[in-house]
Amino acid sequence: MQKNNRAVWIKRSKVYLTDQTKLPFKEEVFISETYKETCRAITDMLVRGAGSIGAAAGFALVQAACKAPKEKYSDYIKKAAEDIKATRPTARDLFAAVERVLPKALISPEEAEKEAQKIADETAEAGKHIGKFGNELIKDGFGILTHCNAGPLALVEYGSALAPIIKAHESGKKITVYVDETRPRNQGAKLTAWELQKAGVPHFIIADNAAGLLMMRGKIDIVITGADRIAANGDTANKIGTFEKAVLAKEFNIPFYIAAPDSTFDNNCPSGKEIEIEERNENEVLFISGEDKNGVKREIRIANPASSAYNPAFDITPVKYITGFITSGGIKKELPL
Amino acid sequence: MQKNNRAVWIKRSKVYLTDQTKLPFKEEVFISETYKETCRAITDMLVRGAGSIGAAAGFALVQAACKAPKEKYSDYIKKAAEDIKATRPTARDLFAAVERVLPKALISPEEAEKEAQKIADETAEAGKHIGKFGNELIKDGFGILTHCNAGPLALVEYGSALAPIIKAHESGKKITVYVDETRPRNQGAKLTAWELQKAGVPHFIIADNAAGLLMMRGKIDIVITGADRIAANGDTANKIGTFEKAVLAKEFNIPFYIAAPDSTFDNNCPSGKEIEIEERNENEVLFISGEDKNGVKREIRIANPASSAYNPAFDITPVKYITGFITSGGIKKELPL
Repeated sequence: MQKNNRAVWIKRSKVYLTDQTKLPFKEEVFISETYKETCRAITDMLVRGAGSIGAAAGFALVQAACKAPKEKYSDYIKKAAEDIKATRPTARDLFAAVERVLPKALISPEEAEKEAQKIADETAEAGKHIGKFGNELIKDGFGILTHCNAGPLALVEYGSALAPIIKAHESGKKITVYVDETRPRNQGAKLTAWELQKAGVPHFIIADNAAGLLMMRGKIDIVITGADRIAANGDTANKIGTFEKAVLAKEFNIPFYIAAPDSTFDNNCPSGKEIEIEERNENEVLFISGEDKNGVKREIRIANPASSAYNPAFDITPVKYITGFITSGGIKKELPL
Repeated sequence: MQKNNRAVWIKRSKVYLTDQTKLPFKEEVFISETYKETCRAITDMLVRGAGSIGAAAGFALVQAACKAPKEKYSDYIKKAAEDIKATRPTARDLFAAVERVLPKALISPEEAEKEAQKIADETAEAGKHIGKFGNELIKDGFGILTHCNAGPLALVEYGSALAPIIKAHESGKKITVYVDETRPRNQGAKLTAWELQKAGVPHFIIADNAAGLLMMRGKIDIVITGADRIAANGDTANKIGTFEKAVLAKEFNIPFYIAAPDSTFDNNCPSGKEIEIEERNENEVLFISGEDKNGVKREIRIANPASSAYNPAFDITPVKYITGFITSGGIKKELPL
C-alpha cells in the first residue's frame, strides 16, 4: 500500500489516494489539489469502499476550508459540503463524515483537518481491532475462503474481512486464502488478490463456482466476508454470491463469519426483508474490462450478443447461516450489538 | 442451427459443422473436405460436446474411405482410424464411433457412411427422447436454472439439458430460463444463451453468484444440467459449479435433474470418489476472450497479474442431491439403469 499504509491521506491540503480504477494493473497515487478534484475521485470511484469514501469526504471538506475566500467563508464551505454529499448516493460513511467535519470547518481549516484526520484514524483503528479479534478464529494451517473485497483499500488501512487474514499471516500462521473472483465485477480477482499479494499472504484466485468442490475436499476451514449492511436481527446484505457460500458452509459445518465496522450495523433495519437489492446494468455481466498483452485497457463482450442478463448486485444471507460477526468490539453472536 | 438443424452432418464426402470457436459472435459453417481437416476440427474444438465429436469422428472415417487409394485401401483406413482417435483424449463417444465405423469402412465407403449416419441419427434421437421425457417435468410458468452447455451443439441436434427446455417452449409453455454464465469458460453465456436465443426461448444470463438469490426469491422451479460422467451409484461429474447449484436446490427443496444420453452413464465406475477431477490451466481463470466493440476477438487479463489461480474444471454432485436423471428411456430415480 502507499505511504503510511493508507489508501487515502491528506498532507498540506493535498489529498492522496491509491487510484483503485488503475488496480491491479497499475499502482498509482492520485493527488487531488482541490475539494472538487476529490469529489470527482469519489464519483469516478478512484476511491471506493465505505470507510475510505468517508475519509476522503472529510478531507475534501478540509480542502474547501483551506481554499475558502475570507469574505464568503461560510457560504463557500456549506456549498462544498453539499457538493461532497452529492458524489455517491448510498455510502452512509460519506454523509456521516461531512456532518462531523462541517461544524469544525466553519471554525477554521485547522479544526476541520483535526476532525477529518480523526475520522480516518478511527476507521483505520476499527479495522485494526477487527483484525486482532478475527485473528483468534484462524488457526495455523487454515484454508480460508473470502468473497469480494473488504480490505485495506476499502477501509483506509486494515480492512474488515481481510484484516484478520493479514493479521494471521503476520503473526506467523501458515494459511492459504482462496479468493472468489466475485463476478460480475471481479473485485476478488482484481482487488483482494492484489491486497493479499502486497501483504505477502499465500492465496489462489478461484472461479466462484469452485468453492463447493474445495469445501467438499476439506480445503476450507473458515469463510470470512465483509458486509454492505447488517440488519438488527443479523441478516446481512453483501456482494452477490455471499449467500451461496454461506449455504455451502452450513452444509459442510464450516464456520461462516461476517467482518464489519460499527457503521455497517443498521439497527433501524429490522431484518433482511427490509433491505432492497440494487439491480445493476446488465452490461456488467455481458462485458468485462481488463488489460491485453500489450498493457492496453480494453472492454470486451463475453456473452451471446443477442441475450440479456439479469444482474442483482447483492444478496441477503439470513442470520441462521452466519456463525458470528467480527466487530471492532470483539466476536459477537448475539445481535443487536 | 444449420441445415436440417444439426451441428454436424455429411454430404458427398464433405463434413459440415457449426464452427463453435466462432460462436456466439459469428455463425459459420466449416466445410471439411478431407478426414484430416475433420480431425483438425475436432482437435481445435470447432466441434465439441461428446455426441457431436462422436458423429464427426464417424464421418471423418467415411471421408477417409472415400479417398483411400485402391491398392492400399485397408492400410489407409486403419491409419486414418488411428489419426481420428488421437484427436482428443477423453471423449468416450469418439472411440466408440471409430470402433463402430471401422469394420464397415473396410468393406466400402457406402457401408461406412450408413453406419456413421446411424451414429449421428441415434445421437440426435437420444436427445429427442430426453426432450420428450424431460418436458413432462416442466410446467407452464416455470423458471428454470441451467449450468454450462449441454445443448444441440454438443449432441448433434436436440441436446441433453436443453432438449427438455426447448421442447417445453415449443409445446407452448411459458418458461423463463436463467443461464449461469459458467465461469471460467463461459459456456453458458456464450453457447447456451446462443442456442436458447436461436430456439426463441426467453432467457437471462446471470453471474454464477446470482442463483442463490433467485432461488430465495422463488424464481427457480427446477434445475436441469447435463453431465460429463455418471457413476453407477448416481454420483455425477459435471462442469465446476454444478455441485454448488445442487446444494442450493436442496436447501430450497427445488427439484434438481441431470439430463444425459446412455453413453454418459458409466457403470464401471462405482461412485464419485473414483472420478478424477481435471485441473486445468490457471489462465482460464486469469484471462478471458471475447469481442471488442469493433468486432475484433481479443483476450484480456481480468485478475491481479502477480496472483495464481486454482482451476478445477469439474465437480462431483453426490447422488443425494439429485432428484432424478432424464434419460432417453425415461425419468430414472434408481441407478444403475
